[in-house]
Amino acid sequence: MVDVSAKDVTVRTASAAGLVRCSGAVVDALRGDGVPKGDALAVARLAGIQAAKRTPDLVPLAHPVAVHAVEVDAVVVDEGVELTATVRTADRTGVEMEALTCVAVAGLALVDMVKALDREAVITDVRVTAKTGGRSGSWTRG
Amino acid sequence: MVDVSAKDVTVRTASAAGLVRCSGAVVDALRGDGVPKGDALAVARLAGIQAAKRTPDLVPLAHPVAVHAVEVDAVVVDEGVELTATVRTADRTGVEMEALTCVAVAGLALVDMVKALDREAVITDVRVTAKTGGRSGSWTRG
Amino acid sequence: MVDVSAKDVTVRTASAAGLVRCSGAVVDALRGDGVPKGDALAVARLAGIQAAKRTPDLVPLAHPVAVHAVEVDAVVVDEGVELTATVRTADRTGVEMEALTCVAVAGLALVDMVKALDREAVITDVRVTAKTGGRSGSWTRG
Amino acid sequence: MVDVSAKDVTVRTASAAGLVRCSGAVVDALRGDGVPKGDALAVARLAGIQAAKRTPDLVPLAHPVAVHAVEVDAVVVDEGVELTATVRTADRTGVEMEALTCVAVAGLALVDMVKALDREAVITDVRVTAKTGGRSGSWTRG
Amino acid sequence: MVDVSAKDVTVRTASAAGLVRCSGAVVDALRGDGVPKGDALAVARLAGIQAAKRTPDLVPLAHPVAVHAVEVDAVVVDEGVELTATVRTADRTGVEMEALTCVAVAGLALVDMVKALDREAVITDVRVTAKTGGRSGSWTRG
Amino acid sequence: MVDVSAKDVTVRTASAAGLVRCSGAVVDALRGDGVPKGDALAVARLAGIQAAKRTPDLVPLAHPVAVHAVEVDAVVVDEGVELTATVRTADRTGVEMEALTCVAVAGLALVDMVKALDREAVITDVRVTAKTGGRSGSWTRG
Repeated sequence: MVDVSAKDVTVRTASAAGLVRCSGAVVDALRGDGVPKGDALAVARLAGIQAAKRTPDLVPLAHPVAVHAVEVDAVVVDEGVELTATVRTADRTGVEMEALTCVAVAGLALVDMVKALDREAVITDVRVTAKTGGRSGSWTRG
Repeated sequence: MVDVSAKDVTVRTASAAGLVRCSGAVVDALRGDGVPKGDALAVARLAGIQAAKRTPDLVPLAHPVAVHAVEVDAVVVDEGVELTATVRTADRTGVEMEALTCVAVAGLALVDMVKALDREAVITDVRVTAKTGGRSGSWTRG
Repeated sequence: MVDVSAKDVTVRTASAAGLVRCSGAVVDALRGDGVPKGDALAVARLAGIQAAKRTPDLVPLAHPVAVHAVEVDAVVVDEGVELTATVRTADRTGVEMEALTCVAVAGLALVDMVKALDREAVITDVRVTAKTGGRSGSWTRG
Repeated sequence: MVDVSAKDVTVRTASAAGLVRCSGAVVDALRGDGVPKGDALAVARLAGIQAAKRTPDLVPLAHPVAVHAVEVDAVVVDEGVELTATVRTADRTGVEMEALTCVAVAGLALVDMVKALDREAVITDVRVTAKTGGRSGSWTRG
Repeated sequence: MVDVSAKDVTVRTASAAGLVRCSGAVVDALRGDGVPKGDALAVARLAGIQAAKRTPDLVPLAHPVAVHAVEVDAVVVDEGVELTATVRTADRTGVEMEALTCVAVAGLALVDMVKALDREAVITDVRVTAKTGGRSGSWTRG
Repeated sequence: MVDVSAKDVTVRTASAAGLVRCSGAVVDALRGDGVPKGDALAVARLAGIQAAKRTPDLVPLAHPVAVHAVEVDAVVVDEGVELTATVRTADRTGVEMEALTCVAVAGLALVDMVKALDREAVITDVRVTAKTGGRSGSWTRG
């Protein structure tokens, strides 16, 4: 693990996004009465928040970071569910991995909720979209 | 959580795959001397195996399953790293979520290893590719 | 830890219940537009399910048990929120601790959701209400 | 999760209390030679301390907090065991949930230790009793 | 991870032992009024039991095993504290790693309890001492 | 848990070491083509890093510490594998337990990797070798 003990405690944020591509039947269910297993979008959001907090447990060389805020959205679109997350901290290193982990695990939870209806659901395009703070400053994906 | 207590203990497998798309510079490094942070492929494989065992901790409505075998591969291709996983159990429910979690978290760990070289790496096409066992029998993605 | 390796694998269930007593203002909010922090009842239910799976991590001398089903309910009543849980397994020991842990942690999560409105919320009457299976057979709280 | 990154790092404490109500036979055992399963009060105290550290893992929207001190007491009284806990931190948000989690999980561990003697033990009156520090200052339950 | 899904569910045990070597002052304290931080032997035993249950989380390629019994002893001897553990399961693979993990983590917890008195405490001779069950049958260290 | 909330945030380091003693056949394998189960030294190093981050989960009275750097080495010597670790933090308490936990769990993982070749492998001499920072300043084992 890279040594971050000499870095400053500053406010840092990172945003990530991804898509769970699923069948029209699932999209219709999510826009209508929901899927039989429960509130898929709520479960995905909570799973993402909890996973953000567990990032250093999942990613072997990630530093423990004091996660100070997590926002997750799960929006039903025609091809599936768009997931976005923003994580914020006042700590010595960035939270890109926390934002990515949030989206990836929200995606896993969502697939679990819909897999009885669509065993072909795909988690795709999980990527960092923006960051602020830290030595390298702000960055937005082109 | 769906009740699986009355299902039979039988051997079940699931396979999943995904791609971490990254820059040519990262691909070259992985094919050459490796990335500065360490052995990226080894870290990704181990992270995937450990995550497979933690699936019920990450996916809120997933059942605890006795994971009896996990194989993970990480193969460098021109567009990045292809990840594949097969999970096997003798238990009462399937291991599709374990296989997907293995690939997704291996992808997160890989991004963490290469992000100093390529902040635009993307985890994509994470999907179940095949399963065997259980009431619904064998299935291979078309 | 008591040795359970010689006990039979049989279907066992346990139910537990408890109450989060909270202010009239919270009850009104939960019956109306909800609390500002989010869907308190959904968060409580999910936290309970996840905690049931983590019982052996929380309760030092509890055995790992294959949790095969968890049902949690959170019902708003005049004095607060009634929580009930039923856990089911086919394993060598009972799931009373899993059902109690589910209710207790659902209660903790609920308090967290409403504490900005009512810092005096109380988790109370957390108790096993019934069990079936195992050597001691069925039992219902008198 | 509410954003706390702009809050000050200050010393904050929270205290919580609760009661495990159990049978006279259990109270007698705890006051005498102990229960067969082991040192019930010691197990409860340790389980509480460890749970305080795991609060953000158990309570979905709780922030990770640097737990700097935990004190737990378990006192045998005529109606059962009174549990009290005080948690202290120098961090950006309060530790009420940590203190409550400590008491609730100490209660679960205690029930586990005595349940062979009394399957009707109840965890009750788990509540925050006092706090200091933070924007809202000191508060003691009336 | 090696595939164990085709192995039989049979009763298997493993025993391990180790020594925490510490100063005469610590030995005297443990034989007398104890160390200031608390009941060192009780904390070590509980930490060992809990660690045995978490073996697959700590040891990357270890299989999840249904831990059905753990016994730990911590005996004060002239040179320190002797730790022994026996783990028992009815499952498809052995519990040697669980027994070793139990002893090693009990040792870590013990060092933590005494380190204010003796910063030179050493965990040593952590080894499997015997096993029964499984294809390779019984074995006792020579 | 001892109260550390009033201690200063300063840079602190701790180093630990230990030895996994194993057979000549294992030493030859590690110096040659490796052991059948995989890259034993890489697995041990990663397990150690991850365990360092989980120290407060394993050691009941250890404080959560912001682990800012971990270095682990695993060097094959004639009698087995020498493990060393250095942990660094900028926090309110020392990281001796993190360094020891890193070495002890790296040792467990290593034993798991070689146990098919040598069931008599021993984890030994796990000890703190040096520390810097904090009120008691620098110290090196004599």
